Amino acid sequence: MSKVLITTVPFGDKNRLPIEQLKAAGIKYLINPIGRKLKEEELVEMVSDFDALIAGTEPITDKVMSAASKLKLISRVGIGLDSIDLLAAERRGIKVSYTPNAPAPAVAELTIGLMLSLLRSVHVVNAQMHLGEWHRHFGRRIPEVTIGIIGAGRIGGRVLRRLAGFGTPRILVNDTKPNLEVAPELKLEWIGKEEIYRHADLISLHIPMTVQTKNMIRREQLLMMKPDAMIINTSRGGIINENDLAEVLSTGHLNGAAIDVFDQEPYTGTLSQIDRCLLTSHMGSMSIDCRTRMEIESTEEAVRFLTGKSLQGLVPPEEYEVQRQGL
Amino acid sequence: MSKVLITTVPFGDKNRLPIEQLKAAGIKYLINPIGRKLKEEELVEMVSDFDALIAGTEPITDKVMSAASKLKLISRVGIGLDSIDLLAAERRGIKVSYTPNAPAPAVAELTIGLMLSLLRSVHVVNAQMHLGEWHRHFGRRIPEVTIGIIGAGRIGGRVLRRLAGFGTPRILVNDTKPNLEVAPELKLEWIGKEEIYRHADLISLHIPMTVQTKNMIRREQLLMMKPDAMIINTSRGGIINENDLAEVLSTGHLNGAAIDVFDQEPYTGTLSQIDRCLLTSHMGSMSIDCRTRMEIESTEEAVRFLTGKSLQGLVPPEEYEVQRQGL
Repeated sequence: MSKVLITTVPFGDKNRLPIEQLKAAGIKYLINPIGRKLKEEELVEMVSDFDALIAGTEPITDKVMSAASKLKLISRVGIGLDSIDLLAAERRGIKVSYTPNAPAPAVAELTIGLMLSLLRSVHVVNAQMHLGEWHRHFGRRIPEVTIGIIGAGRIGGRVLRRLAGFGTPRILVNDTKPNLEVAPELKLEWIGKEEIYRHADLISLHIPMTVQTKNMIRREQLLMMKPDAMIINTSRGGIINENDLAEVLSTGHLNGAAIDVFDQEPYTGTLSQIDRCLLTSHMGSMSIDCRTRMEIESTEEAVRFLTGKSLQGLVPPEEYEVQRQGL
Repeated sequence: MSKVLITTVPFGDKNRLPIEQLKAAGIKYLINPIGRKLKEEELVEMVSDFDALIAGTEPITDKVMSAASKLKLISRVGIGLDSIDLLAAERRGIKVSYTPNAPAPAVAELTIGLMLSLLRSVHVVNAQMHLGEWHRHFGRRIPEVTIGIIGAGRIGGRVLRRLAGFGTPRILVNDTKPNLEVAPELKLEWIGKEEIYRHADLISLHIPMTVQTKNMIRREQLLMMKPDAMIINTSRGGIINENDLAEVLSTGHLNGAAIDVFDQEPYTGTLSQIDRCLLTSHMGSMSIDCRTRMEIESTEEAVRFLTGKSLQGLVPPEEYEVQRQGL
């Protein structure tokens, strides 16, 4: 009988359907018993007996795979592939699937929410009000500011299309492969990243974590930004260097930041001491509908594989190429 | 020489133009020296010598007007008229002007931001993260929920049109005078208030404060709402009874609330002890552009009046009728 290890948590929490799908197919499963994001060594100890993983963002390295002699499929709940050593999987004949579209609407909507909170200092004022302090902060509206979007793919494109409902801000966009049709209702200025750092009031990142994007925004880039600029990261931790961000914010530079993703999760760093840094706990995809869709799609892929049907969510060759060029 | 008392603060803070306009017209002015919202008795002591008021939401009662023998114009920075005894002004021959359109875009945008924060528990998670706690909360997206809008005028209409960019939620709308053309891109269900209380997941109020709407939402109405409903008030304090809301939230009913306006401001009540109550400090109109436009429009009206030109922002008869019927 086939066995699946579900390493991501929560799983099947808001909707039992993925669990029912595994049961109906006669597949045995184990949900991560530790209940939080697993570390490499924990995975190594856990994986030996399983044919497939239904995986979150925990590190599925060559070492983990070497301990998983039966492993034939990694089915990612979500889009990012930085946590998986794709080349090691390829060498070992382990297939990798993912659900790239499912999280996008939830991440885009959270991003707009973070933009509006930053623009109006909602997070700062809420904290003050809960301490019994009353200060009325001036803010800015979306059509008043220059917005910089780095990465205009599945998520960045959805952010752009939702922005269109708020009027016509100046929007600067950067992407390695510009899609000129991404938001036909908006006049976009396609431009280099450094131009965005220098000229945008509100910068949002929607790019994968790769060797090229890791630490892409360090002290140097943060200091290029306007003194009252704001930055949002709902993509991957480590693209903005967290220590540099904390240091730059503590000097008074930048009006605020909203950070949903961290180099190490759960996050325990010093950004939590900075009031104007709005922090969330990797919740971009955590809307009930998107999370459910991600879990169902990744489970269906595992069931297809283990019952001999053809896969529908295989990671395309260009994702392997990204890691090949980087490594 | 004419003299204007500017009772609202801040004023001329982000843009000096209103101050320059008064100076250019040779009008003497005094900005509220107490620096916070004035109480009735403070106004009584302050107003005797002025020909016009440029006013915020402080109470301009019959008693205040009786102490202002020279007063001939009240020019409101904003839209709400609940703070002014319009019938007393009428009896005393004091004209009243306002700037009903200027604040609407800023209030609508803040409202959408509060909706997105409530739906994803951003305020709750941010507070936890700043305490070093990591909890991943599930949320819902706008197209997943039933939204109830009470009041579909200048502000409610703008909220509706901005929601259209987020997909197609079910939207229930109530208004005393339904405008069926308010958001042609959305399918709206015009319905009674009680239906909205019972069926909406996310309720937002965009109505004036009148005798009819004061305490409109009390314990009884809050308990009609779904256990996981959320409510937003960016209109006027006192429309939701604050004590009832605090009591109902403390029993665990309702998923959250976002309150920007209070019966007494600055607010010092018990809602500040409830984490899932998102609190802001009457900041709906506090975007730099809208606040500046409100200040300029109300100042121009005062300058027109005091230099013998005809007024452009006079409060229409129906606003007097609202108070006449109520009192």
